[in-house]
Amino acid sequence: MAYPRKIAVHELGPREGMQIEKTPIPTSEKIRLIDMLSECNFPEIETTSFVSPKWVPQMADAEQVVAGFKRRPGTLYTCIYLNKEGMARAVATGKLDVAGNLSITASETFSKKNTNRTIEESLAETERRIEALQSLNVPINQIGVMAAFGCNYEGNVDPHHVVRLIDQMMQIAKDGGANIDLIQLADTMGWANPDSVRRLVGLVQDKWPEQKINLHMHDTRGLGLANVMAALEMGVDDFDAAVAGLGGCPYAGFKDAPGNIPSEDLVHLCGELGIETGVDLERLIEVAREAEKIVGHPLPGKVMRGGNLNAYRRKAKEAGIVPSGSAV
Amino acid sequence: MAYPRKIAVHELGPREGMQIEKTPIPTSEKIRLIDMLSECNFPEIETTSFVSPKWVPQMADAEQVVAGFKRRPGTLYTCIYLNKEGMARAVATGKLDVAGNLSITASETFSKKNTNRTIEESLAETERRIEALQSLNVPINQIGVMAAFGCNYEGNVDPHHVVRLIDQMMQIAKDGGANIDLIQLADTMGWANPDSVRRLVGLVQDKWPEQKINLHMHDTRGLGLANVMAALEMGVDDFDAAVAGLGGCPYAGFKDAPGNIPSEDLVHLCGELGIETGVDLERLIEVAREAEKIVGHPLPGKVMRGGNLNAYRRKAKEAGIVPSGSAV
Repeated sequence: MAYPRKIAVHELGPREGMQIEKTPIPTSEKIRLIDMLSECNFPEIETTSFVSPKWVPQMADAEQVVAGFKRRPGTLYTCIYLNKEGMARAVATGKLDVAGNLSITASETFSKKNTNRTIEESLAETERRIEALQSLNVPINQIGVMAAFGCNYEGNVDPHHVVRLIDQMMQIAKDGGANIDLIQLADTMGWANPDSVRRLVGLVQDKWPEQKINLHMHDTRGLGLANVMAALEMGVDDFDAAVAGLGGCPYAGFKDAPGNIPSEDLVHLCGELGIETGVDLERLIEVAREAEKIVGHPLPGKVMRGGNLNAYRRKAKEAGIVPSGSAV
Repeated sequence: MAYPRKIAVHELGPREGMQIEKTPIPTSEKIRLIDMLSECNFPEIETTSFVSPKWVPQMADAEQVVAGFKRRPGTLYTCIYLNKEGMARAVATGKLDVAGNLSITASETFSKKNTNRTIEESLAETERRIEALQSLNVPINQIGVMAAFGCNYEGNVDPHHVVRLIDQMMQIAKDGGANIDLIQLADTMGWANPDSVRRLVGLVQDKWPEQKINLHMHDTRGLGLANVMAALEMGVDDFDAAVAGLGGCPYAGFKDAPGNIPSEDLVHLCGELGIETGVDLERLIEVAREAEKIVGHPLPGKVMRGGNLNAYRRKAKEAGIVPSGSAV
């Protein structure tokens, strides 16, 4: 068991967090959130989503948000897009690090419900997506599998099925001239547990030892960080998260089900294990508390309530407290 | 790595959850909560706390609560007491399974703040506590260490210091004629992480292989279930929890910091890993949602929002859905 020395935490709050909010969030507040997150030194911040305002009215101001935030050197500012129109809008901002990712959903039922396409149709569509990205000069390097662990409509997802899908996607990417160096496994509906993480991550590592694995875990049933632990123990060093746990799960049984793992809880865990993230936890906790004010309702983050252990340690040291038992 | 085949989940919600609530909860509601929890088949429910109403007004109705609930065969109904007066009140109810536990706090500073005694004074007091319990015919079988992983006032707690304290307590118990078969390690202020759990549990298992270990984990910084995972992997099979995550942390940096790990989240995790708990998860989720109504504010439980995966699996099966990739 060897943890990675350093991991990358991708901050998705501004995108994943905002899209689920029913109340319109002012554009200036979205920009303020991104700018505050920039101070925390994330390697990547996902800023917004270029989707039809008909489907996601909250994201109608994507261009204004992108125009408004300040880029900080050292952070990649990315976005989500669904189709060629979205890609073109993202590229047209001239300000984003548009990532070329190919996406497939492991559950046929969820694929149809969420993207209106079967898995077969999505595979076929991938060729056109590659061409579209290439026509916009966006380098393609990622494959993502949604619902990679389970699905509210189908139940458990067979990890061997996921591996076959990745294999097909890798072939399509290769045929299209794309060089994939990152495989994302997304637990879109919160079905993973530490055992299923070990199983799927193990299969993917065995088959694609050269590719980096990214885990996108939802905390819908409270296992987000337990799942991260299982992955860290296997050397996975690339994780998505959202400040304060912004973002919910529209597919869950009840409203206000938790969404992404809270970034500051992940950063705190890594700090305690001696794994570097490069993220400023003190500042991030402040931003998490601001995020709660911005959306106007409680968010599931815990370290933002419990407090940073390093702050307590510092306080104890400054007070000259001798730890109990140390004189023995 | 071998999980235990079965674990015991001790439900603390009625006691640990209620004592922190500022608004008085009607006695009838406290009784209703215990009766609902009885339907879930826990091996133990901690019902109330016999403390001075001056210190904890919420617990002034301890006797009425105990008189009111219905005992279910197969469940132990326990309570907390601080001193001889509390023990006597608990025994006098004639209805409780009063457990004889000896308690020590690993942090000198916290010990003084929380119990108004130094560690040395607590050790000395333990002899009198043994005599008091024996005079009431309460069998003594447990030693508990509070703040066993860290302390908001002192920082990290040295696991070797904890082992020395347990050793002293074991000797005092033995001298007093008590037979200790359970050692509880309590992360009272949410300082543990999976590595520190492995370290302390490993030391205790090595030194006391005959004694069972109980873990009382707080989820103050979101690591409750990740810590449970680390312990399960070491064979620990005895855990405390509170329905819906009832109970907070009065020592945390901010109000509404999470307290105990939510029972239903723990039961769900175990179910997914194939570990038996004997607890009825469906019913427990309903009770968790009722608990939220009883206290009148959101509680941190997640499965109560995300929904029970087995219910989704059943629904998919009933709908005759063929899992994706299964036909390959």
